[in-house]
Amino acid sequence: MQDLSRVVIVGGGFGGLSAAQSLKHAPVRVTLVDRRNFHLFQPLLYQVATGWLSPANIASTLRTALRHQENARVILGEVVDVDIERQQLVLCDGRIDYDTLVLATGSSHHYFGNESWRTLAPGLKTVEDATEIRRRIFLAFESAERESDPAKLDALLTFAIVGGGPTGVELAGALGEIAHDTLTHDFRNIDPTKTRIHLFEGGERILPTYAAELSVKAAAGLNRLGVSVHEKAIVSEITPEAVTIKRGETVERIACRTVIWAAGVQASPLGQRLATRIGAKIDRAGRLMVERDLTIAGHPELFVIGDLANCSQQTGKPLAGVAPVAIQEGRYIARVIIARIKKKPVAPFHYRDRGSMAIIGRASAVAEIGRLHFSGYLAWLAWLFVHIVELVEFENKILVLVQWGWYYFSRNRAARLITRTAVPADAELERDKMTGSGANVRC
Amino acid sequence: MQDLSRVVIVGGGFGGLSAAQSLKHAPVRVTLVDRRNFHLFQPLLYQVATGWLSPANIASTLRTALRHQENARVILGEVVDVDIERQQLVLCDGRIDYDTLVLATGSSHHYFGNESWRTLAPGLKTVEDATEIRRRIFLAFESAERESDPAKLDALLTFAIVGGGPTGVELAGALGEIAHDTLTHDFRNIDPTKTRIHLFEGGERILPTYAAELSVKAAAGLNRLGVSVHEKAIVSEITPEAVTIKRGETVERIACRTVIWAAGVQASPLGQRLATRIGAKIDRAGRLMVERDLTIAGHPELFVIGDLANCSQQTGKPLAGVAPVAIQEGRYIARVIIARIKKKPVAPFHYRDRGSMAIIGRASAVAEIGRLHFSGYLAWLAWLFVHIVELVEFENKILVLVQWGWYYFSRNRAARLITRTAVPADAELERDKMTGSGANVRC
Repeated sequence: MQDLSRVVIVGGGFGGLSAAQSLKHAPVRVTLVDRRNFHLFQPLLYQVATGWLSPANIASTLRTALRHQENARVILGEVVDVDIERQQLVLCDGRIDYDTLVLATGSSHHYFGNESWRTLAPGLKTVEDATEIRRRIFLAFESAERESDPAKLDALLTFAIVGGGPTGVELAGALGEIAHDTLTHDFRNIDPTKTRIHLFEGGERILPTYAAELSVKAAAGLNRLGVSVHEKAIVSEITPEAVTIKRGETVERIACRTVIWAAGVQASPLGQRLATRIGAKIDRAGRLMVERDLTIAGHPELFVIGDLANCSQQTGKPLAGVAPVAIQEGRYIARVIIARIKKKPVAPFHYRDRGSMAIIGRASAVAEIGRLHFSGYLAWLAWLFVHIVELVEFENKILVLVQWGWYYFSRNRAARLITRTAVPADAELERDKMTGSGANVRC
Repeated sequence: MQDLSRVVIVGGGFGGLSAAQSLKHAPVRVTLVDRRNFHLFQPLLYQVATGWLSPANIASTLRTALRHQENARVILGEVVDVDIERQQLVLCDGRIDYDTLVLATGSSHHYFGNESWRTLAPGLKTVEDATEIRRRIFLAFESAERESDPAKLDALLTFAIVGGGPTGVELAGALGEIAHDTLTHDFRNIDPTKTRIHLFEGGERILPTYAAELSVKAAAGLNRLGVSVHEKAIVSEITPEAVTIKRGETVERIACRTVIWAAGVQASPLGQRLATRIGAKIDRAGRLMVERDLTIAGHPELFVIGDLANCSQQTGKPLAGVAPVAIQEGRYIARVIIARIKKKPVAPFHYRDRGSMAIIGRASAVAEIGRLHFSGYLAWLAWLFVHIVELVEFENKILVLVQWGWYYFSRNRAARLITRTAVPADAELERDKMTGSGANVRC
């Protein structure tokens, strides 16, 4: 009989961790491999980047998450390849045998060929990204306080966010609040309320995956926070001093010292590697095309979930790269693995969309739950509730609640540290290029 | 009449911040210069290094601390020199005129000429130091989990702390708890309770500034947590694989992969610079000798406080480099500055020692308040109370309380992130060499 007992999962993000945990009572030995020792609750990462929460508040160590799961072990390691023939996962310092392999290495930023933008406009995927963006935001205000040249001052107090999806919208809203609430009394030479925040979206409207009415409401909410929302605006150039935008025929250059990238994502390089190695199909974003049971065609032992997978059978379009998709996929493949051992059939994966929400600011959000669309205070409360419930650790639930509560009344953001590793930002970002949201695939 | 109104303070540590705040109602314009944008509550830094608190929990931005003090402004800048003749503070990108200058740039680690130890045995002064030590501690356990060679495994599970002052004792105690409580269920291949923790003190006893009976109690408390306390043990060599210790004639080599430095401090390089420039006297640790009013002899406009000052008139020995000394010195010089404007005399500085406390572990500490010496649970409660009260921000008081309370019951340390800037640790530590606890003096 074929041994199915060694399940190796690469990546401790939403997909990988949910797969591991769903195998708790299965007769298998689970090995979870990640280059980081923690699971990161990415939907709240923008709150770290804007000085509200601390990184540890939205992280839980993978060991803590699996400490009482006897059939699971955690390996801190960097995956470099998969040896399909020998059924081995190749780490930079060893190999791990598998019977079933689950790839959940996530995605990183995509700059559409403009690699030089990577250092000029960091994206938001890792804890280091968040502290780097935090550093840039608050350093811009500090430099502005000391700037006497009006043109330079203008550029320092101008922020651009590229990409009008949920991350871009949430970052823009948070920046608006920083400028108009948090920093009001902090400076002597500058007036932070004169900060200009631009949100550039290439498509017709921000939050394109939401109902059109919610995009309008989100844009209105952002306007109230002092954010200029630009639709159909394509970024054509980013330099240390400015962003250039194309809107149809018009080209506009906006002097701006801080740019944040929230536009494109690209699947972890492992997808490309499997494409080369076993001829697996990938889409333009580097995601592996998966079968209805989330395996690679011809490789029933190889599951791919989360941002690395293009799962499009259900709606004809790939499922979005969001936490609920990854979590449900993780749970599903655990069911498949258990069913195989019991030699029972399993229905194809079916994603249940429980809705989506994006926060605009204090007491303001948009939410879409089935046919129900709502915005404002109620959506904001729903957002808070869902995100608190979903945080893995109880301690973090309390800490986040305290900080949200405190912010609600004081409008202060206490985690505004400018920490600076002597690192050139370039070196740091260079590394991130190769990292997925979960595990890294480079030594 | 001489203008006394421009008071420039360098360093936003305990000394500099207390001086700035004590000048709130004085008819002066205060400029606080620091290369960091936050005040750090250093006595709790070891709790960041051991995965208990987040950096932001023990930091408050200087702008928040001074936001409602109309006569104060904050400048984020790097001080490179003092131009005594022109009465200007020299930043790497500008100059600031002063009538009165307060130097409170603190201290950094001192490796007694063994500069190569700096990267092998990081010290604990900055937020980056703390996250680097945290990374090393938890990475050692991760590597141990994957190690099959028994000798290497031994070295990975051996930790050495050099220096038996309060920081060394507190780090050793926290490491003992990590090994014996926090990580108990986390690993599959290793038994964290087999961790060996060595605390090396060159002198007769640990906590040398405390009463002898408390040193004995602290050592007993550490033993209970699995820490081996070595007295009269001088570290003669540190390599990536081992620490070599001399005790009289005996030399012992202990295989050990993680070494933390808590032994010597050296005043910020600004002391040396003033010695060269205006012939100010410094002691062996680089501290500037100050007069009874905390000025430099012959320079009534130049105050030096905190770890940068050697203030020894009162007891014949220099006052210790601890927060209460710096705070009282800051308050005192504010009184001197105000008195000068009012043309009134001020008595020499007199330090009121309100006692000292060091924590050993959960529900265990030693405390010395005047002639009263106590230890155990009561000392621990006193320690908690004093440290919570002294935290600058109300939000941080709550967050720290929640985390301490949670730890007390669950023994979990949630902030165990191994964050890795792609930086070689060397580069990071290279920078710290030049940083004081408050402001940096390098561009």
